[in-house]
Amino acid sequence: MTEGATGRTHPTEQSPLAIVCCGGSIPFAVADMVQRNGRPVVLFPCRGWADRDAVRHYRHHWVAIAQLGRFSRLARQEGCSDVVFIGSLVRPPLMQLRLDWLTLRALPRIVRAYRGGDDHLLSGVARIFEWLGFRVVGAHEIAPEILVREGPLTAMKPSERDQSDIAQGLALLAATGRFDIGQAAVIAANRVLAIEAAEGTDRMLKRVAELRAEGRIGLPRGVGVLVKAPKPQQDRRIDLPTIGPSTVEAVARAGLAGLAITAGSGIVAEPDKVARAADAARIFVVGVPSLRATP
Amino acid sequence: MTEGATGRTHPTEQSPLAIVCCGGSIPFAVADMVQRNGRPVVLFPCRGWADRDAVRHYRHHWVAIAQLGRFSRLARQEGCSDVVFIGSLVRPPLMQLRLDWLTLRALPRIVRAYRGGDDHLLSGVARIFEWLGFRVVGAHEIAPEILVREGPLTAMKPSERDQSDIAQGLALLAATGRFDIGQAAVIAANRVLAIEAAEGTDRMLKRVAELRAEGRIGLPRGVGVLVKAPKPQQDRRIDLPTIGPSTVEAVARAGLAGLAITAGSGIVAEPDKVARAADAARIFVVGVPSLRATP
Repeated sequence: MTEGATGRTHPTEQSPLAIVCCGGSIPFAVADMVQRNGRPVVLFPCRGWADRDAVRHYRHHWVAIAQLGRFSRLARQEGCSDVVFIGSLVRPPLMQLRLDWLTLRALPRIVRAYRGGDDHLLSGVARIFEWLGFRVVGAHEIAPEILVREGPLTAMKPSERDQSDIAQGLALLAATGRFDIGQAAVIAANRVLAIEAAEGTDRMLKRVAELRAEGRIGLPRGVGVLVKAPKPQQDRRIDLPTIGPSTVEAVARAGLAGLAITAGSGIVAEPDKVARAADAARIFVVGVPSLRATP
Repeated sequence: MTEGATGRTHPTEQSPLAIVCCGGSIPFAVADMVQRNGRPVVLFPCRGWADRDAVRHYRHHWVAIAQLGRFSRLARQEGCSDVVFIGSLVRPPLMQLRLDWLTLRALPRIVRAYRGGDDHLLSGVARIFEWLGFRVVGAHEIAPEILVREGPLTAMKPSERDQSDIAQGLALLAATGRFDIGQAAVIAANRVLAIEAAEGTDRMLKRVAELRAEGRIGLPRGVGVLVKAPKPQQDRRIDLPTIGPSTVEAVARAGLAGLAITAGSGIVAEPDKVARAADAARIFVVGVPSLRATP
């Protein structure tokens, strides 16, 4: 452990949990779970990313990405020592970051974090917050009920062909994981239709929908699976594969049979809504055992 | 060798070469090279794919994809026994194929060929033409001058950072090759920005250009490389990685430093035009040794 920038705070289980919120509905689902378990939360929604309306229902302070000084001061004032990062964080352009004095001191670390893949960036972010004296915890540690369990969440179940597509998707993601790329792929009748890299899952699914509309897939609707799995070496505190109701809608628009996500490491935001949306669209959502990475 | 459908013709070196042309300018570049070497050619441009204006300069018969009977009859009348497939072939939807009687007989083979990845499809196509009694030859066998040679084609050369991106791209494509997916990826400052699957190289590059325009790449222009390499188990007679002037333009629009393609297995259409376009855009084009596939 290296010496921190501003001294280390003393974590206690019942200190309020600082939740840094980026896009999507998962930060709020986690906040609700934590509060339900009796622990107070303080949200730090990121300007431009977090949902303004949803944020109002929680104690919160808006922050700009990279305003480390502002975050650090407010989180201390609130008595927070644990911090959790949740929600889709799209890599902001370095030149657009609004720097404050503490960020300037951390800049060499940030620049180092930027060189390389997403996983590298995200573990760099975690190290920077540890250097500030906070304990970085994973959403799955503070709200384990958020993790996907094995088996179908839906009335529909994967067929044998779907299971074969799922197995191929897991093998593919295990093979690409060491290159620190996306956590998702689309496989249909044993053919890889798309692999996610910097564009994110939603955009990848949109591409599949477009290829289908253009007649370039050559398979009927209801064939193909979105497979999501964590990268093998990923810092699980920061960036676990995540699905929510919007993922289900995108899978349906892409004409796939369903989606598979690794049990124990995948996150499902609003599982009831996910199940309802999937049942209405007649697609399956299934938690599957994760593969070990190929060496 | 299984018994053919209509008896095997007797290949002779100087029989006219049947060139089945799909999209792009490469079929014509190959036709010119073959004619320059003294062998006559007959083009079989695919309706909807081949360039109508360019086709006019050659002896030709239009065919619809999957009109095996028409192709087989005309190619025999022309005295062709060797056939080469060139140009981008986008998987046509099975239901849109215009079937003729011979295609109907071949249908079980075609359906088998369709189940699985592109490589599987393409080697299935080759087997069907062999079953018809033709010899399927690779463009690189009849016009070896079309293959990329090692080293830069351009005034610009890859920097050390570009070389590191190229090495990572080759390693990634070697790891994904056994999944029978695309032949291209974009790497920038050691980060994988995009991997090609069913969408094709042009669309992948367009995605990178869009991500850049949206500020989601976080790297200045002139960082990043398009890497193209054949799949390890690929049937090289049918589908080698290919670049042309339009690839260079798409690389420039994506704001990359250049493109690397494997020497001895990559094809460059119109190398002079490619070099001129790349020099004008100040990007490099380099032939690189291919990696062996990871087991």
